[in-house]
Amino acid sequence: MTNDTMITVQQTARPTGFPAPAHFAFVESPVPAPEPGTALVENVLWSVDPYHREAMDSDEIWTLNSPMEGRTLGRVLDSRDPALRPGDLVLHRKGWRTHALVTKDETRPVPDLGPGVPLAAHLSLLGGTGLSAYVGLTRIARLQPGEDLFVSAAAGGVGTAAGRLARLLGAGRLVGSAGSARKVAYLTEEVGFDAAFDYHDGPVGELLAKAAPAGLDAVLDGVGGEHLEASIAALRPFGRIAWVGAVGQYHSLSAPPPAPRNLFDVVGKSIRLEGFLVRDHMDALEELYELAVPHLRSGALPLDVTVVEGFGHIVEAFLGMLRGENLGKMLVAA
Amino acid sequence: MTNDTMITVQQTARPTGFPAPAHFAFVESPVPAPEPGTALVENVLWSVDPYHREAMDSDEIWTLNSPMEGRTLGRVLDSRDPALRPGDLVLHRKGWRTHALVTKDETRPVPDLGPGVPLAAHLSLLGGTGLSAYVGLTRIARLQPGEDLFVSAAAGGVGTAAGRLARLLGAGRLVGSAGSARKVAYLTEEVGFDAAFDYHDGPVGELLAKAAPAGLDAVLDGVGGEHLEASIAALRPFGRIAWVGAVGQYHSLSAPPPAPRNLFDVVGKSIRLEGFLVRDHMDALEELYELAVPHLRSGALPLDVTVVEGFGHIVEAFLGMLRGENLGKMLVAA
Repeated sequence: MTNDTMITVQQTARPTGFPAPAHFAFVESPVPAPEPGTALVENVLWSVDPYHREAMDSDEIWTLNSPMEGRTLGRVLDSRDPALRPGDLVLHRKGWRTHALVTKDETRPVPDLGPGVPLAAHLSLLGGTGLSAYVGLTRIARLQPGEDLFVSAAAGGVGTAAGRLARLLGAGRLVGSAGSARKVAYLTEEVGFDAAFDYHDGPVGELLAKAAPAGLDAVLDGVGGEHLEASIAALRPFGRIAWVGAVGQYHSLSAPPPAPRNLFDVVGKSIRLEGFLVRDHMDALEELYELAVPHLRSGALPLDVTVVEGFGHIVEAFLGMLRGENLGKMLVAA
Repeated sequence: MTNDTMITVQQTARPTGFPAPAHFAFVESPVPAPEPGTALVENVLWSVDPYHREAMDSDEIWTLNSPMEGRTLGRVLDSRDPALRPGDLVLHRKGWRTHALVTKDETRPVPDLGPGVPLAAHLSLLGGTGLSAYVGLTRIARLQPGEDLFVSAAAGGVGTAAGRLARLLGAGRLVGSAGSARKVAYLTEEVGFDAAFDYHDGPVGELLAKAAPAGLDAVLDGVGGEHLEASIAALRPFGRIAWVGAVGQYHSLSAPPPAPRNLFDVVGKSIRLEGFLVRDHMDALEELYELAVPHLRSGALPLDVTVVEGFGHIVEAFLGMLRGENLGKMLVAA
């Protein structure tokens, strides 16, 4: 490979069950020259996300043997559009490749938020991941200051962002679940959760009841099943559950999680259960910036990211994320 | 029994499964004289409600071998409170008896809404039943003009009120389910539903998909289970399900209905599922009056009520309502 070579990751087969490296190929081709109205971007930071697991099953999203797409951050190398200048940093969706040709409309400039705000913030706390957490807390669960919150899968990208943002929003008791002792420790020692539990340690209902003995006002859930049932049981009257479309695995890896047996209590407790997709709430990004950027600048708000170095490891990073090996948002850096 | 005799219905045993007349006794006692600050009321119209089935199981609500309570309308016979004058019509909760001693605080005056508004309206369309429908449509499902609505158990008190009120609110296509051909015909021929089906005629999901082939925006459900699953399947993105606590049987007669297998689609479709209890929304009664009373007065809004004549038949009326024998709200008249 030389500087003239572009590498695109292409899916070569549809998985049944858990995907493997064999489902992907790294395909080399010449770096393209920009045509009028486009720019050549060299990608420097990639996001690998749960929803990519769904994309693997979909002929509409990831066509076999074609370049895949994903959220990424790149630098303009060459341009035939005056609105995109060489050196510009842009956010776009033509990820999973080293280079991409983009039009102005396909990009969003990386805003200059001053020193102290790392580039990785734009693909984590200030990206779709953080925005999912922000929208779930504010627009869907409508978390009020002093209210007690449970976050499931709390050590991942959305979960850690939810914990950090809930603190900034003045949440009361903050409880999280995660899949290992290391993650549980990370939640309470680093992210600021008041209590956390490993959901392997017993029935989730019992673990949550113990972690939130006085009940809960709001839940951000991306897991469903036993977590949702435990949430309904722990919520106080008028509790809200924001169900975030972040964990795509369930559509793909197996049957959906079983529905909660206590769903009928939604009536008796006047609970609101609401699903949402972050793409419908992009207009909240400005609010998220207002809330988070000052704390990023001051250093009071660390990023929760696991960064895998080297584009060549992007498939491993993705599979590792699906296995839950990341603390915070999983990213790949060039 | 003479005019000096008061009859109270008392529950004598807790049922297992479907209740029977043997679980109740009609107990005679002398009509009490009002003490200072109370009035003697002769009841003239009684409401029997699904939530009474739950009350039968609860030591807190209906103590065995004591007078039971329920929504009723009565006339003041004698009073030792100047605020309650003989002849006044009042609404109160000491039903399931011929007479009651009440304080001013335990009553609400029957408002004089002019000719054309029958007394029965206060225990049906303008009572807790109609208010449940109104709140479910407006505050919970937030039905907008032109939007398509599905109402389950639509031939009952809440369901018929929902159909009538949805029309006044400008709903688009109106679909209902019911438990017999007679009820289905009533919904389309009398209440104004565009389509209705008997849920015994096949899988509810298929029946609803056929009745609402273009999808739905909102659902008022009091049934759960298969009806809820069908609703989730038929709803468009951003659909809302108001889950009304009207059908109490499920807590009592058997296990709760199975949770919908497609609950996960709440995320993908950004659906909101919200339970509510009408007691938390009594402040909406004024709005309901504003919407409905002009149409009651003009005769454009008929009441959907099944009135059983004779207090002695109140237990039969209640059991008949649980069996679904009523069209509209089940009431008992003296």
